[in-house]
Amino acid sequence: MEVSNKYIVVKHHIQDAPKESDFEIKTGALKLSVDSGSNDIIVKNLYISIDPYQINRMKSHSPSQTAINFAAPITPGEAIDALVIGKVVYSGNAKFEKEDLVMGVFSWAEYSLIKEENIIKKLEPSQFPLTYHIGVLGFNGLSAYAGFFEVCKPQKGEKVFVSAACGSVGSLVGQYAKILGCYVVGCAGTQDKVRLLKDKLGFDDAFNYKEEKDLTSTLARYFPNGIDIYFDNVGGEMLEAAVENMNAFGRVSICGVISEYTDSEKRASPNMLNVVYKRINIRGFLAADYMNIFQEFIDKTSEYLRSGRLHVLEDVSSGVDSIPSAFVGLFNGNNVGKKIVKVAE
Amino acid sequence: MEVSNKYIVVKHHIQDAPKESDFEIKTGALKLSVDSGSNDIIVKNLYISIDPYQINRMKSHSPSQTAINFAAPITPGEAIDALVIGKVVYSGNAKFEKEDLVMGVFSWAEYSLIKEENIIKKLEPSQFPLTYHIGVLGFNGLSAYAGFFEVCKPQKGEKVFVSAACGSVGSLVGQYAKILGCYVVGCAGTQDKVRLLKDKLGFDDAFNYKEEKDLTSTLARYFPNGIDIYFDNVGGEMLEAAVENMNAFGRVSICGVISEYTDSEKRASPNMLNVVYKRINIRGFLAADYMNIFQEFIDKTSEYLRSGRLHVLEDVSSGVDSIPSAFVGLFNGNNVGKKIVKVAE
Repeated sequence: MEVSNKYIVVKHHIQDAPKESDFEIKTGALKLSVDSGSNDIIVKNLYISIDPYQINRMKSHSPSQTAINFAAPITPGEAIDALVIGKVVYSGNAKFEKEDLVMGVFSWAEYSLIKEENIIKKLEPSQFPLTYHIGVLGFNGLSAYAGFFEVCKPQKGEKVFVSAACGSVGSLVGQYAKILGCYVVGCAGTQDKVRLLKDKLGFDDAFNYKEEKDLTSTLARYFPNGIDIYFDNVGGEMLEAAVENMNAFGRVSICGVISEYTDSEKRASPNMLNVVYKRINIRGFLAADYMNIFQEFIDKTSEYLRSGRLHVLEDVSSGVDSIPSAFVGLFNGNNVGKKIVKVAE
Repeated sequence: MEVSNKYIVVKHHIQDAPKESDFEIKTGALKLSVDSGSNDIIVKNLYISIDPYQINRMKSHSPSQTAINFAAPITPGEAIDALVIGKVVYSGNAKFEKEDLVMGVFSWAEYSLIKEENIIKKLEPSQFPLTYHIGVLGFNGLSAYAGFFEVCKPQKGEKVFVSAACGSVGSLVGQYAKILGCYVVGCAGTQDKVRLLKDKLGFDDAFNYKEEKDLTSTLARYFPNGIDIYFDNVGGEMLEAAVENMNAFGRVSICGVISEYTDSEKRASPNMLNVVYKRINIRGFLAADYMNIFQEFIDKTSEYLRSGRLHVLEDVSSGVDSIPSAFVGLFNGNNVGKKIVKVAE
């Protein structure tokens, strides 16, 4: 049996903000069986993780592309690999059976033909929704957990600022910080998100950065006693304003700088006099470096989920055709929480 | 007996590059005795430490001024406190005697009247020149030692870049790094300094940044395998270029940003995509936070000095009148090594 397999490609390198017209939906024929003797596995994709960092892979060049394997450049016209949850529909590999739920680095497509067994992992039955494996219990969760606890080394009572606080990582960081007993303020780009942060996620306070004229004064208002920890997802002026408001021995963990991803001219220029005299530590990190604490992260996070102390924000679109708009929407702040595209039931 | 005591003041706040005309030499009368019952001590100043960070205290405002006690603002017209080595000429305090050699936070002056015993320390006889107490065996040395070993956490064989490498701190950092077994390149602002770094201080290589057009390419040439550690004394473009050339898990310790001290518009804009993907750690520090390792620093540094592995660069001018030009010269790169003004024999 053969099916048509829709997949998404970029037509060309993208240097600045992505548009839907930068993408193309292609269709290939896929045989739902494999040659005898082959170890190939065919997966029907169910949920695809849509992540902002992919934009850096779509550029003709970026310092990100050589740093680590998963950030390698994407070739225009070719399938785009991403974290996917799927169901095995045909397996030539003895370790996987039809109907197995799996996760792996597959692609923005309806089906994935898996040739390397090291990129696919069987999902054990769990009390949590399937989607959590690519969100709160996956790399987004690990980014938040490791980036906050390992990079920021927080203490109870410290004052924490989180940008893109309604995003997949920021929303978790703020809640981890509240669980630890910190004072937490988040920023986001709409009034609805601000309300969500305060009313549902339990942030002490939140503001809409789009309504603010001078972010340094804004942060001084929300942190009259200064910021101890800034968890940065956006870069740019927000990073400068946060550094301006940091306390002595403040820590800034740079998880991402989404405002700089789509504007190659944009750079944060934090005042280094603050960095020196306040002994500020600014540190970039990647979740992939913290696999050593993966089990601890899963245990703690599962416990917080079960007890209802951690709320999960997911934003799910439907159909492989919706991937370009879902991706473009990340850079316009359209998503509330983890962006996922549901490709099939 | 009464003497005239010359001292230096700033006429007004200084926001940008200092000029000699910003300073004034004042003269006050000083009685070389103290009232009976007083604990005052009168010190004849011998050597005065001239340090770039003082410019930040001369500004009408700077984020540095509130961060830590020693960086408090300087009031125009009033004496300027600084690290000084002197000799007691009169003591009302039982702990100090005439002729005692002392060190403390006194002032840019010929004599100092000491009212608080906690700012003065008796110097024990030593095999090293007196001036070392305000340089290699003082806070400059501790900045280099702690900033390199504690902040950068270097490993033997790592590739180290030092800016302002002929300065009081940079010259020591490079030599500590060579002693550890690192590959060390320094930059400075004249050909003579470059020669000194290579021929006398044992740097593996060095370059004159003033002769370079594109610092990112320059550093790529000197570090074909990337930089592991950047010890920053200058900020600005050099910091940007270093971040561009850092290896994964690179460390940047910010000791000072002299190019930004005298130009309030100047800021470094390191590419945060590098910071994230290469997991770079940028950290400001102050030597004062490392008093816990002061004895270790003194022991090691004394050993390196005795064995001739560590060379000391001192640049001494004479007479209290030379303080303004000595200070202004720091920002023009006139000094070679630690700048000191010798006020008296």
